[in-house]
Amino acid sequence: MKLISYHRAGQAHFGAVTANGVVELTHRLNGVPDLAALLADNALVAQAGQLVAAAKADYALDSVQLAPVIPRPGKVVCVGINYVEHAAEAGRKVGQYPVIFQRYSETLLAHEAPLLRPKASADFDFEAELAVVIGKGGAHIDPADAMEHVAGYTCFNDASVRDWQFHTHQYGMGKNFAATGAIGPWLVTADEIADYRELTVTGLLNGERMQHGKLSELAFDIPALIAYISKALPWNPGDILATGTPSGIGFKRTPPVFLKAGDRYEVVISQIGTLSNPVADEA
Amino acid sequence: MKLISYHRAGQAHFGAVTANGVVELTHRLNGVPDLAALLADNALVAQAGQLVAAAKADYALDSVQLAPVIPRPGKVVCVGINYVEHAAEAGRKVGQYPVIFQRYSETLLAHEAPLLRPKASADFDFEAELAVVIGKGGAHIDPADAMEHVAGYTCFNDASVRDWQFHTHQYGMGKNFAATGAIGPWLVTADEIADYRELTVTGLLNGERMQHGKLSELAFDIPALIAYISKALPWNPGDILATGTPSGIGFKRTPPVFLKAGDRYEVVISQIGTLSNPVADEA
Repeated sequence: MKLISYHRAGQAHFGAVTANGVVELTHRLNGVPDLAALLADNALVAQAGQLVAAAKADYALDSVQLAPVIPRPGKVVCVGINYVEHAAEAGRKVGQYPVIFQRYSETLLAHEAPLLRPKASADFDFEAELAVVIGKGGAHIDPADAMEHVAGYTCFNDASVRDWQFHTHQYGMGKNFAATGAIGPWLVTADEIADYRELTVTGLLNGERMQHGKLSELAFDIPALIAYISKALPWNPGDILATGTPSGIGFKRTPPVFLKAGDRYEVVISQIGTLSNPVADEA
Repeated sequence: MKLISYHRAGQAHFGAVTANGVVELTHRLNGVPDLAALLADNALVAQAGQLVAAAKADYALDSVQLAPVIPRPGKVVCVGINYVEHAAEAGRKVGQYPVIFQRYSETLLAHEAPLLRPKASADFDFEAELAVVIGKGGAHIDPADAMEHVAGYTCFNDASVRDWQFHTHQYGMGKNFAATGAIGPWLVTADEIADYRELTVTGLLNGERMQHGKLSELAFDIPALIAYISKALPWNPGDILATGTPSGIGFKRTPPVFLKAGDRYEVVISQIGTLSNPVADEA
């Protein structure tokens, strides 16, 4: 099942995308306030699946305005340097622990919303990633149980402002500029992905392949990441885990390649879909 | 005016603390949903001041359960290495840009709520700080105008899990463990602080002075911080800016001093008040 958050006629909704259009779930699951609340409960997800299978589409996908898959997640946890080849280009080694950093939820944007190249910098770079959407919450999760907490998967672009990222020894605001965290277009529920390690992530700049990796290449796999972070802070439904980007980012190229107004960056993940965003200058 | 967020009889409220008790503002300012919304508008803050001046207290302060001053701020922006003496003890120099890191709002806790020493580590350290609460939002703020965006000041304890903070080159989850960001007990509105640079911050462990600094010692002052961050991401009402901790933290002492169950850490700021939290082990 492909699940989305969206607006239609000024109202916030969640629903499912089918071959015939959008099945609105908001009114069919009365009392469930948003997609995060739906994902919190496997029984509700199963009920949604039955409703969607039995329903006709309510309207066309292009009649809705997509929101970020989870419009305002409780937290977005990002992982750096998690593909060995990307670690090499960044001049880093994969160590004993995953490199974790934080992104404010307010920096997220939807499929087709413009990534904003900031006034403050021209070093605006792309990072194609697989993002995990958490369903059932929990703390101190054993890696062996971690996949039970995965509600689904979506595409993520952890667009980064490179000069700011290296203003100091901490990434600082470099990963937290306004309208730089693209996510979507939908999440594919975990039951449809037999083995996430088979997924491939590709990043395309104006149609040209810049990045490519396979999830089996992760230095810290999804169970390890979920478990590690859960020792510090409980996971809650709708939380996002961005699993890191494969090699090919712009600022390590010779010459460097940065995003500019009029560009389009696509994050293509097999079995999931394509997240596509134009680039515009900050007004 | 001292403003608080709190619960009473199961209801979320905001109000003011006076010498005679709490003046509840929730019902007096009908339509203002929370303290962040109040702080967004200087005219509302002025109206609140008149209401409080004219009102009798509704109930005693000890009859309410304090929440974090802003219960769930849009963002908490933290500054590291911002007192020169603390930079020296940390083996860092103050550079051209402020060291910025992110704290998830869900890690905040109220005055008198227990700071949780995590199961995952015994290296649980304290950081007494002044926190700024943003009123009027804005982007690309000029340093000369930045103080207009300050709604008030409160005490903050940026409690840190040191071994995790240095698991990798990024602070990672070390600044984002559950129940480690104490804030309160109230905010003092900006009109009552003639010059924040005169404020002193003191950290007391079980009554013994561990940290002390004066806000005039900040390497990057409040206008500079507000302006820098606003180039990346707009400030919104209720956002928190934690301005950094003075020297004296536990893990740079010989031998190191860490927080343990039964301890109490107090952040005392002149003209503001005292934030006091017991320490308990994570259950």
